[in-house]
Amino acid sequence: MLNAVGREIPEEILKETGKQPYQGAFHFDSVEYKKDAPKTRPVIDPKKSKLLSNIHEALVKCGIKDGMTISFHHHFREGDKIVNMVMDEIHAMGIKNLTICASSLGKQNNPIVPYIEDGTITSIQSSGVRGGIGEAISNGKLKGLAIMRSHGGRVRAIESGEVHIDIAFIGASSSDDYGNLSGMRGKANCGVLSYAAVDAEYADNVVAITDCLVPFPNYPAQISMTNVDYVVEVDSIGDPEKIATGAAKPTKDMRKLLMAEYCTQVVANTPWFKDGFSYQTGVGGASIASTISLAKIMREKGIKMGFGLGGLTKPMCELLNEGLVGKLFDTQDFDMDAIENVNHPEHYYITAGEYADPFNKGAFVNKLDYVILAALEVDVHFNCNVVVGSDGMITGAQGGHPDTAAGAKCTIVIAPLLQGRIPAICSDVTTVTTPGESVDVVVTDYGIAINPKRQDIIDALKDTNLPIKSIEELRDIAYSITGEPNKVQFEDRVVGIIEARDGSVMDVVRQVKPFEFG
Amino acid sequence: MLNAVGREIPEEILKETGKQPYQGAFHFDSVEYKKDAPKTRPVIDPKKSKLLSNIHEALVKCGIKDGMTISFHHHFREGDKIVNMVMDEIHAMGIKNLTICASSLGKQNNPIVPYIEDGTITSIQSSGVRGGIGEAISNGKLKGLAIMRSHGGRVRAIESGEVHIDIAFIGASSSDDYGNLSGMRGKANCGVLSYAAVDAEYADNVVAITDCLVPFPNYPAQISMTNVDYVVEVDSIGDPEKIATGAAKPTKDMRKLLMAEYCTQVVANTPWFKDGFSYQTGVGGASIASTISLAKIMREKGIKMGFGLGGLTKPMCELLNEGLVGKLFDTQDFDMDAIENVNHPEHYYITAGEYADPFNKGAFVNKLDYVILAALEVDVHFNCNVVVGSDGMITGAQGGHPDTAAGAKCTIVIAPLLQGRIPAICSDVTTVTTPGESVDVVVTDYGIAINPKRQDIIDALKDTNLPIKSIEELRDIAYSITGEPNKVQFEDRVVGIIEARDGSVMDVVRQVKPFEFG
Repeated sequence: MLNAVGREIPEEILKETGKQPYQGAFHFDSVEYKKDAPKTRPVIDPKKSKLLSNIHEALVKCGIKDGMTISFHHHFREGDKIVNMVMDEIHAMGIKNLTICASSLGKQNNPIVPYIEDGTITSIQSSGVRGGIGEAISNGKLKGLAIMRSHGGRVRAIESGEVHIDIAFIGASSSDDYGNLSGMRGKANCGVLSYAAVDAEYADNVVAITDCLVPFPNYPAQISMTNVDYVVEVDSIGDPEKIATGAAKPTKDMRKLLMAEYCTQVVANTPWFKDGFSYQTGVGGASIASTISLAKIMREKGIKMGFGLGGLTKPMCELLNEGLVGKLFDTQDFDMDAIENVNHPEHYYITAGEYADPFNKGAFVNKLDYVILAALEVDVHFNCNVVVGSDGMITGAQGGHPDTAAGAKCTIVIAPLLQGRIPAICSDVTTVTTPGESVDVVVTDYGIAINPKRQDIIDALKDTNLPIKSIEELRDIAYSITGEPNKVQFEDRVVGIIEARDGSVMDVVRQVKPFEFG
Repeated sequence: MLNAVGREIPEEILKETGKQPYQGAFHFDSVEYKKDAPKTRPVIDPKKSKLLSNIHEALVKCGIKDGMTISFHHHFREGDKIVNMVMDEIHAMGIKNLTICASSLGKQNNPIVPYIEDGTITSIQSSGVRGGIGEAISNGKLKGLAIMRSHGGRVRAIESGEVHIDIAFIGASSSDDYGNLSGMRGKANCGVLSYAAVDAEYADNVVAITDCLVPFPNYPAQISMTNVDYVVEVDSIGDPEKIATGAAKPTKDMRKLLMAEYCTQVVANTPWFKDGFSYQTGVGGASIASTISLAKIMREKGIKMGFGLGGLTKPMCELLNEGLVGKLFDTQDFDMDAIENVNHPEHYYITAGEYADPFNKGAFVNKLDYVILAALEVDVHFNCNVVVGSDGMITGAQGGHPDTAAGAKCTIVIAPLLQGRIPAICSDVTTVTTPGESVDVVVTDYGIAINPKRQDIIDALKDTNLPIKSIEELRDIAYSITGEPNKVQFEDRVVGIIEARDGSVMDVVRQVKPFEFG
């Protein structure tokens, strides 16, 4: 069946998953549903302790068994030790057929690839699966389907009961004996625990794992003791140096600086750029450069940002410190400066649900004026791909891309026209991850394209000196340089689903074909 | 059937309500249940507004109809205008057979008594029903049963699905257009919105009513936009002067000062009084006096309180300002000083669930060392009555009494031996609201009784000069002064249930018999 972005979604996938094809960004707006709910064991007797001696004991207490769904969060990023630690123990116990529902997985989790191959893990649900896990999935090693969800979509999936978590494992930089958890005040601080909040609320069993047990009450708590069953203390939950590896240094790449300047000019010349505007940007070099160049214009014009949102980096936090931003709402910290800035009184921890969930009564993304995003590929329908590489391999993550794109009044995607020898602007993206209807402006180093449905933006920018082109013109320039690339070849087998934030199917990912010498 | 506090619970009441008789404070500990969940209409489209022009429009949008359950919170106390405002509109629409599920109701709600009499309201669930509503219930005017719940018990009832709220009305001192709510930053500040948090989470429809609409985002938010459907702006939600009427002035009553001194000596001589201890006290004159006299000993001995909990008053906030308390956890503010103190960085808003819910994974009350409570009556089984007056009329509220009593390591109840000509220490309380098993020490102006099951406290106090007596001795002194009082006479009809915090039946309340001149 063709979905609203023109992708053919195989009937057997719709049948197997019970999903609908994607029908538009706001298709489920106001469509009533009943939320899921966890099973809970009350802790009434104050004499009971939640402290357990090790992860094995926690697994036993939670009744780990074949076929369960377990969950993790990825705030420790490349420094995370929790996933591997828990999976090693589960593997040693001989448990099979697990579904992992993680907020994201990365190359730090390469050690669990053998557990995919031996059937310990048979399904994976994640924002992305970079590194060895992505390769394993794309190579058809996972028995079941991989489901790639946005950050908001993951919250929706859990709260709607599409996935029900049996045991959630929450790495916490600090915890007291009753499970008040924080991403601060520990040995390995990750800043915030936003992605894990929904796990704490909806999982039947919640296990906190910490390497910094502090006296009760560990406040301010980001996750409440009222949702935590057990607390396990271990030697180390994360490598502090690798937690912050998302940090991009200010770029000196002229191409990125040019795109940043274009992006800033788009923002500065559109009607939402006024005192109190709201803004989110990513961690790419051009995104960060555009924050820095935007700040200059803000100072010149005396315009302050009302709030900044999302995964945060040093440049955004510096704007807060300077008083150029009123408030920051934080779901993830990409560098040490952002983590330390969590202590600023106007730097607020929010949950992933508050950030981006399409199925609650209105998330922060709905209140964004601007979001600056990156993409691996953008096509002439403005569809974006942020998950599947040009070799067909799963290598990226949806993150908050489709969430913020749907919510923001002006969604700007930055992509250099060519990624090496591969055109980033193309006729059809390999895989659709964010629908073109949610993308308003595409900024490349060869010019800027505005989505024709956004006549208001076209009008706002028509008297500027910006190099406005049609998206087809940008594609043609790219193809004129590299030639039109051959399509990546896939096997028939579907190995993964790109889930739209509302739970419908945006696209499927198929097994890669082994490269054949001609 | 006799329950665990020896009260006969009529079979027909158990049948009608599906409830069990009370079987002990920790009977349901670890007994797994599945939480309830609301129906939700997602707000995905960022162009949608939540602002409605008036309460009538909100009622229509929420589909108000006969038989629904609607809810309110009581943070505005005697200054509250929300309940009457909403009920007037509902009454004007001719809706009947409503259940009101309120965190509490008081004499400010006397104007809705006619709506009880005319069948607009046929069931009431509340912590207490002071004033005209209490009299109406005790006089048999309410068609259905009144259910009196503790603050923690109300959270349990809602989250377990025992009561499902169709429409929650949340008065908010400030709100933005998307429903981020706070008890601060408005014209009529109540401090915190703790009791309403569970309504926001579990009600199918959530309507915020505010008289102070502020720009987005209204942060820090105590209740999140993600749970709010509609926002209605009205002229005034509360009378600021009457919000703070719970405040007790430092007492000069020698009897209360004596009890305060006894209470302080009990605390100071029991083993939990050490650096980092936790403490909750009420708003009665003796409770407040005991906080003040305890502070003196804390200063002398260099002992600091780890945290203070509960409904807060000026004396507790002054301890925080002085640095004698590490943190305050706030569910309700009884005076203007406490409301202003919400801005202190170590004064934390918590939900009623975090405070006292027996059915989550561990509430703050479980971590209390000491709680100082008051009571209308205490009997020789240490059972307390805080709801039904000596005339048989419902006149009080459970509040957090049974929650804190069950949780604290040392529960101290202060009661003057005689309340006017009525003995407060008696053979059997009129109505059991807190079970004797949860009460450790009873302090009167004639002596102190320790629950015999607390040998540890008996040992701790045996070398002090405190006038330790048996509870029977105290009762006998009281009776020797007043004579043994005649029992209040009731009709057969059960008009209300005293629900234990776990949902079982602690006691029933019967219709009062009209006074007959002999």
